[in-house]
Amino acid sequence: MTFITNVRVTDVRFPTSLSAAGSDAMNKDGDYSATYVTIETSDPTLRGFGFTFTIGRGNDICVSAAELRAKPLLGRELDDVTGDLGATYRDLKSDSQLRWLGPDKGVEHLALAAVMNAVWDLAARRAGLPLWRFLLSFSPRELVDLADFQYVTDVLSKDEAVALLEAQVSTRDARIRELDGTGYPCYTTSAGWLGYSDDKLRALCQEAVDAGYKHVKLKVGADLADDVRRCRIAREVLGDDANLMIDANQVWDVDQAIEWVGALAEFRPLWIEEPTSPDDAVGHATIRRSVAPIGVATGEHGMNRVLFKQMFQLGAIDFCQLDAARLASINEVVTVYLMAAKFGVPVCPHAGGVGLCELVQHLSIFDYVAVSASLDGRVTEFVDHLHEHFTAPCIVEDGAYVLPDAAGYSAEMFPESVEEYAYPDGAYWSLRLEQAEAEAVA
Amino acid sequence: MTFITNVRVTDVRFPTSLSAAGSDAMNKDGDYSATYVTIETSDPTLRGFGFTFTIGRGNDICVSAAELRAKPLLGRELDDVTGDLGATYRDLKSDSQLRWLGPDKGVEHLALAAVMNAVWDLAARRAGLPLWRFLLSFSPRELVDLADFQYVTDVLSKDEAVALLEAQVSTRDARIRELDGTGYPCYTTSAGWLGYSDDKLRALCQEAVDAGYKHVKLKVGADLADDVRRCRIAREVLGDDANLMIDANQVWDVDQAIEWVGALAEFRPLWIEEPTSPDDAVGHATIRRSVAPIGVATGEHGMNRVLFKQMFQLGAIDFCQLDAARLASINEVVTVYLMAAKFGVPVCPHAGGVGLCELVQHLSIFDYVAVSASLDGRVTEFVDHLHEHFTAPCIVEDGAYVLPDAAGYSAEMFPESVEEYAYPDGAYWSLRLEQAEAEAVA
Repeated sequence: MTFITNVRVTDVRFPTSLSAAGSDAMNKDGDYSATYVTIETSDPTLRGFGFTFTIGRGNDICVSAAELRAKPLLGRELDDVTGDLGATYRDLKSDSQLRWLGPDKGVEHLALAAVMNAVWDLAARRAGLPLWRFLLSFSPRELVDLADFQYVTDVLSKDEAVALLEAQVSTRDARIRELDGTGYPCYTTSAGWLGYSDDKLRALCQEAVDAGYKHVKLKVGADLADDVRRCRIAREVLGDDANLMIDANQVWDVDQAIEWVGALAEFRPLWIEEPTSPDDAVGHATIRRSVAPIGVATGEHGMNRVLFKQMFQLGAIDFCQLDAARLASINEVVTVYLMAAKFGVPVCPHAGGVGLCELVQHLSIFDYVAVSASLDGRVTEFVDHLHEHFTAPCIVEDGAYVLPDAAGYSAEMFPESVEEYAYPDGAYWSLRLEQAEAEAVA
Repeated sequence: MTFITNVRVTDVRFPTSLSAAGSDAMNKDGDYSATYVTIETSDPTLRGFGFTFTIGRGNDICVSAAELRAKPLLGRELDDVTGDLGATYRDLKSDSQLRWLGPDKGVEHLALAAVMNAVWDLAARRAGLPLWRFLLSFSPRELVDLADFQYVTDVLSKDEAVALLEAQVSTRDARIRELDGTGYPCYTTSAGWLGYSDDKLRALCQEAVDAGYKHVKLKVGADLADDVRRCRIAREVLGDDANLMIDANQVWDVDQAIEWVGALAEFRPLWIEEPTSPDDAVGHATIRRSVAPIGVATGEHGMNRVLFKQMFQLGAIDFCQLDAARLASINEVVTVYLMAAKFGVPVCPHAGGVGLCELVQHLSIFDYVAVSASLDGRVTEFVDHLHEHFTAPCIVEDGAYVLPDAAGYSAEMFPESVEEYAYPDGAYWSLRLEQAEAEAVA
């Protein structure tokens, strides 16, 4: 028998604010960070890795929350923990005192995501399968039983969800073969960070086109004249056929969003992403009606399945950008995919940050193979940084994610990276904080 | 000149789980707790006190988050901090790295509430006024300028809000005199905790009637047969004229809520409180349409102004139960009151817990005097426990809150209480944790 012997949670922060990579109208100086969970077992060859993603300060708060969330795992027998992943999720989620701090949102939910992502990684490694293949090993009924249906049964019953999955079973293999050849289509955000100059923007757009991308995304929302100029540059480089997306990172109120997007309509964006508060399903529905045919996309801050349910019910979004480290792991992600399939909304997961690309490739492949069986309107985010810290980084070729084949959820970082960027005691931060102190004295 | 010299945040937990006070279908064993903030200044006679409310585990996470949130206050000049309470709020809220962990929800938002509640207490003490009177000292324009209107301008412009407040100015004094005589009406939840026996329920309902209450609330949602029996007992004791409210604390999905409430309709509840997920504005609207004329109430887990905006837009609730320690202090509470007034929804704040009654009495009085100018359908929660720990506890007479007259927000606890119930090192918890350890060994 194998037991869980320890759960380590590490505050890992990468100093991305130094390069303006990741800068947008709302998030000017993020240090991409991970609340990084390692589950150790009595079998020294078997561990699980997972994380939630933050942008710096407060990552320590998530670490404390994840440590508390993980406590019920200690000493548990592995067959028990990974044998019923629905029960494990419900058990960790069931603490009513911690529930008060959400429920199902904010730091506590991020912490649950971090811990359960590691449990899923552990389970997939134990099965010797990459996460997307591990998900295919469950029957439709098993998958639905492990998904969190609390508060969503008014739009999707479990039986309906099972039927939806069953309808795709017989054609799964053909789609796996297809993706094996083509990969899963992605787009790049690396070109359009707000802190980049016009020349850098132009060059990066050209690079994206040359690398085979059909979609490029720009950050907007700080200054309208800048946005017009930058969109014009991007559209010039991309030509008429490629897709341009714009992303405001929640800086507008509803009326302002409608006005601003109207002023950029001439550049024919495929979507406006995060036009306003991520919580505002009604507001997104209003914006969508007003800016059509430009699509509305949101979800990286979509706090839970109940929010996405309302987005779908109100017809608020054209693209669902769920986040693999904000939703409480596969148990909640599957629920959102199932609802999206029922409502016919394509899911284009949020990625970037640190390690999110590694996670979402599994989700997109699972969606195409087992849930939506469609690539229409679907394209998954890819941002080309920080992959060097992962032991099995995602691979992108010709604008598509190559199917991952290593066992697990691709969430493991090199121990050297974790050590160097551990905050505040890792080598990188020790030195930098020491320098800052010296400067303050001088 | 006076400066902020220190901000202390203490994890205070009261062992309410021992008595089943506070038990309901979702929260079976809460230890009512406060993330308790003390702002110290260079004037030893001037401090500010505030808190957010939690129910035990995870209160330490909120403490860490509040410490981080409060950092920008250290060393600041007091005129600067309390002279523009809108700017102070925006400054504390503006940290984009911490924003990622919400935004505007969960632990980070609770922490902001705790810190800003203490800032408001400090400002009111400095002015020598109870908080409700301090709020009346602002002009309508000043009040609106300090309120957080981000993401709500599509339903309420600042000018509209100013006009709404101005319309009530000339009649304010008459309403203050009225409340001075009658107090602000409240109802009691102390009778109906789920953990209480039928006999205890009957006796407590009778006590409530004898004490002058016109409203009594029962917890429901764990077992339908139990609920029918308990509602029947309560209705028998209350007679036909008094109001019975029922509270499910989020245990149902939407369809289940409609069915269960239908089975209790014969007892003519005034409202069903928290029938489902607090995030589900669309779901509450569906339930409301289905259970009318029974009203729908929610809000104690209403995470922010954007959620309440949608509740109002969708006609989802008959009673808005905002929480003074979950919304990010007066700056966000005022916004919700203004929207509620525009949409004609009565606000009946959530209270109970520890210290919430002390806070919300100020809000209800402010609402009647300056915002809604109405008592129709309004009744504020009152739960009779833990008041003995406060230096200026609320006073309830004949089912009404007596106007508080001590300067501040009534949030200060006796230092002896804070010391005794500090977790885990206070006298109470040290002993109890020692005993638990001894039992574990034996």
